Amino acid sequence: MTTTTTIAAISTSPGVGGIAVIRVSGKNAVKNCDAIFKAKNEKISLYKQFAKIVSYGNMVNKTGEIIDEVLATVFRSPHSFTGEDVVEISCHGSVYVQQTILQLLIENGCILAQPGEFTQRAFMNGKIDLSQAEAVADLIASSSAASHRMAMHQMRGGFSSELMKLRTQLLNFVSLIELELDFNEEDVEFANRIQLKSLAIAIEQLIMKLSDSFRVGNALKNGIPVALVGETNVGKSTLLNVLLNEEKAIVSDIHGTTRDSIEDAVNINGITFRFIDTAGIRDTKDKIESMGIERTYQKIELAAIVLWIVDCTELTEHIEWLTDRIAKKAIGKKVILVFNKIDKIAEEERDILNQLFEQFEGERIYISARDRINTDGLKNALIAAAQIPQINSDDVIVSNIRHYEALQNAHIAICRVIDGLDSGISGDFLSQDIRECMHYLGEITGSISNDEILGNIFGKFCIGK
Amino acid sequence: MTTTTTIAAISTSPGVGGIAVIRVSGKNAVKNCDAIFKAKNEKISLYKQFAKIVSYGNMVNKTGEIIDEVLATVFRSPHSFTGEDVVEISCHGSVYVQQTILQLLIENGCILAQPGEFTQRAFMNGKIDLSQAEAVADLIASSSAASHRMAMHQMRGGFSSELMKLRTQLLNFVSLIELELDFNEEDVEFANRIQLKSLAIAIEQLIMKLSDSFRVGNALKNGIPVALVGETNVGKSTLLNVLLNEEKAIVSDIHGTTRDSIEDAVNINGITFRFIDTAGIRDTKDKIESMGIERTYQKIELAAIVLWIVDCTELTEHIEWLTDRIAKKAIGKKVILVFNKIDKIAEEERDILNQLFEQFEGERIYISARDRINTDGLKNALIAAAQIPQINSDDVIVSNIRHYEALQNAHIAICRVIDGLDSGISGDFLSQDIRECMHYLGEITGSISNDEILGNIFGKFCIGK
Repeated sequence: MTTTTTIAAISTSPGVGGIAVIRVSGKNAVKNCDAIFKAKNEKISLYKQFAKIVSYGNMVNKTGEIIDEVLATVFRSPHSFTGEDVVEISCHGSVYVQQTILQLLIENGCILAQPGEFTQRAFMNGKIDLSQAEAVADLIASSSAASHRMAMHQMRGGFSSELMKLRTQLLNFVSLIELELDFNEEDVEFANRIQLKSLAIAIEQLIMKLSDSFRVGNALKNGIPVALVGETNVGKSTLLNVLLNEEKAIVSDIHGTTRDSIEDAVNINGITFRFIDTAGIRDTKDKIESMGIERTYQKIELAAIVLWIVDCTELTEHIEWLTDRIAKKAIGKKVILVFNKIDKIAEEERDILNQLFEQFEGERIYISARDRINTDGLKNALIAAAQIPQINSDDVIVSNIRHYEALQNAHIAICRVIDGLDSGISGDFLSQDIRECMHYLGEITGSISNDEILGNIFGKFCIGK
Repeated sequence: MTTTTTIAAISTSPGVGGIAVIRVSGKNAVKNCDAIFKAKNEKISLYKQFAKIVSYGNMVNKTGEIIDEVLATVFRSPHSFTGEDVVEISCHGSVYVQQTILQLLIENGCILAQPGEFTQRAFMNGKIDLSQAEAVADLIASSSAASHRMAMHQMRGGFSSELMKLRTQLLNFVSLIELELDFNEEDVEFANRIQLKSLAIAIEQLIMKLSDSFRVGNALKNGIPVALVGETNVGKSTLLNVLLNEEKAIVSDIHGTTRDSIEDAVNINGITFRFIDTAGIRDTKDKIESMGIERTYQKIELAAIVLWIVDCTELTEHIEWLTDRIAKKAIGKKVILVFNKIDKIAEEERDILNQLFEQFEGERIYISARDRINTDGLKNALIAAAQIPQINSDDVIVSNIRHYEALQNAHIAICRVIDGLDSGISGDFLSQDIRECMHYLGEITGSISNDEILGNIFGKFCIGK
């Protein structure tokens, strides 16, 4: 990647809007923009204008035709998002105007930015580390309070600054150990093994804490999978619709959320639940239907929470058999037993109901999906089952699978370091393990990176960011 | 409409983008934004910050949680788009972030802007006239060079300033004439009838010129309707696909253009042509098919240009009959005779072909749609037939049907004024006709407006503009 080029892109959401913003970054950003910008106040040019002051003027093409009235703001290196000279052009949101101005910029020497290239330049120029760059993408994609909060924290430095500090301390030790190797014959110890061990233990504990947080981080970022299971006609679809409908107003208020992702996802108290609808379970001898039901059991395995729905008015003889099957499939998962159509039975019948399910040890909720009785109770039960701690804006949470994998690898290496110290292995093996741990920690912050990693990360960005 | 309120809206295109811009306008714009904005430099607040200087800071909610890192710029009344205090907040383009900041603004006293309300306030505060406000909407919707150029010209003042000047002169005369009425008995003439007549003639001529330009303006804004007619299987669909495909790259480069509007519209040299596909014409005794063909003839009436396509290799005996029918339906329209599959016949057969069509007086083009022979020639013929003069950025062109209707009405009134002057009608009648003309001219610029007109105009805007 060369940063001698000057890049340009439309940074706002594609399509027609009131206004749009075109961003230009690079050595010639000011020059290329100034060539097509004529300020209303003739004394002003983007060259002479102070940084961060908005100038009002026209975008004109080669023949002097006015393409649009715009606002242009210059940010000078290094005080800009990318660390390079940046010009932001705020124009009318016509697609034609946006494309024409972009074309003019390209005619004047800019090249079209690649996806994420502005953020990549910010990383290259040391304005942010790699984990912060990834957080920018997460922030833009965030659609719930919790995922937003995690991305925001990570963008502001998050845990990566802490990792960097520990990594630098490791570097000091490894340098000393490698120095020992130069004095091989003399049996000296420059690196204090006791201090090194306590550092290694501190790192191991932090890595464990971060790895553990991934369960929560991943759930918040991607939503918590919830399977709805039960016999046919117990009201699964009605319940799903009620959950979706009640919250749909919130979901559909958010423009741009694609239909397929909202179809069966609900945001309750800032936590996203993804509902996996399943075929109704019933005891059947029909082969094809049995296969469908087998798939239902498989889907239970994908879920973190299982809502087992029972029609209070239609109890079948399969209860025991079902309890058994669901319990077997749902080991390690939260199962909530939902008694539906509760308004249709008398108070004393509830006791009979509960006795029938006395084998079941999980939580029970009594609702009527159709009449929306106690659906709030069900939502609270879902939130409780999700076991998501209250996230504060300075909590350390890993939500990125790439970070999680690097942490796993770093953990293996640091454990080897601790074991090695305990068993008094030689400096060269120790140094190798420490370097491996440093490598994986460095991958998170981008101290260690390669084109493939960078390509993977920035390729997922939108153009203009 | 009250402008004591402070409005806020997302001004960029809805959906996820790299960045988004939220605009706030009104008396409390700075106060409401400052309440949730914490500048990185603690000495800075939006209150104290100079106008038009970009401030970098955080958007924070009531509990102090950081929602986003943003850039905020204050524009102070009257030096802003709306003429009121305006704050522009440039935030990350996550839908969640956009909505949350908007919510914070509303919690702090802003109300959600109505469609076009920013522009409406600019109009109310005398920053732009009504015709300029309409041009803002046209500019945002513009999707071709020509429609963009017209909107741009109109936005910069266009013909409305000229109309305003003439209207003011009319006002002077009508005041003098109405003064005469006070001196009814004395038979005085304060208003010089000769000067008034020459003014009336100048206005009449300008109105005519503007009205005449509407044909071009409307064609450029809405596209020029072109009917493709011909017998079945002469290659109409192939030709349409070729025209659409060759230019489709340009059309689909433009994000946000809805599919149904591009389906059969092509932008050739900055002019939009809307193709009306028709059922193939053939001599048939089948009643239902005859009805379809009758509809084809009706569609010819909707078109400004008719492409009559003939298969060179399959000439039928209906040529004369068809020539006759199409000629009758296409009176006043440009008809281009397109000989398709020209590569399939020998040179000398062309002469026979031409003789067969000697009755036809319009232009002839020889092409092969499938092999793309001379499709450029056809495009040039379409452009010529469209009779769109080269539009310069200071040409006076009316493209708005509302303006056209007002001009038509003003024309009737000013003609009555001229006739009245010629026949020496009394001052009170004269004054009535002048006032009527002034009324319609004022409707264009918004000097005369009512809630219904304003509602119609601004209701069509997008929110945030």
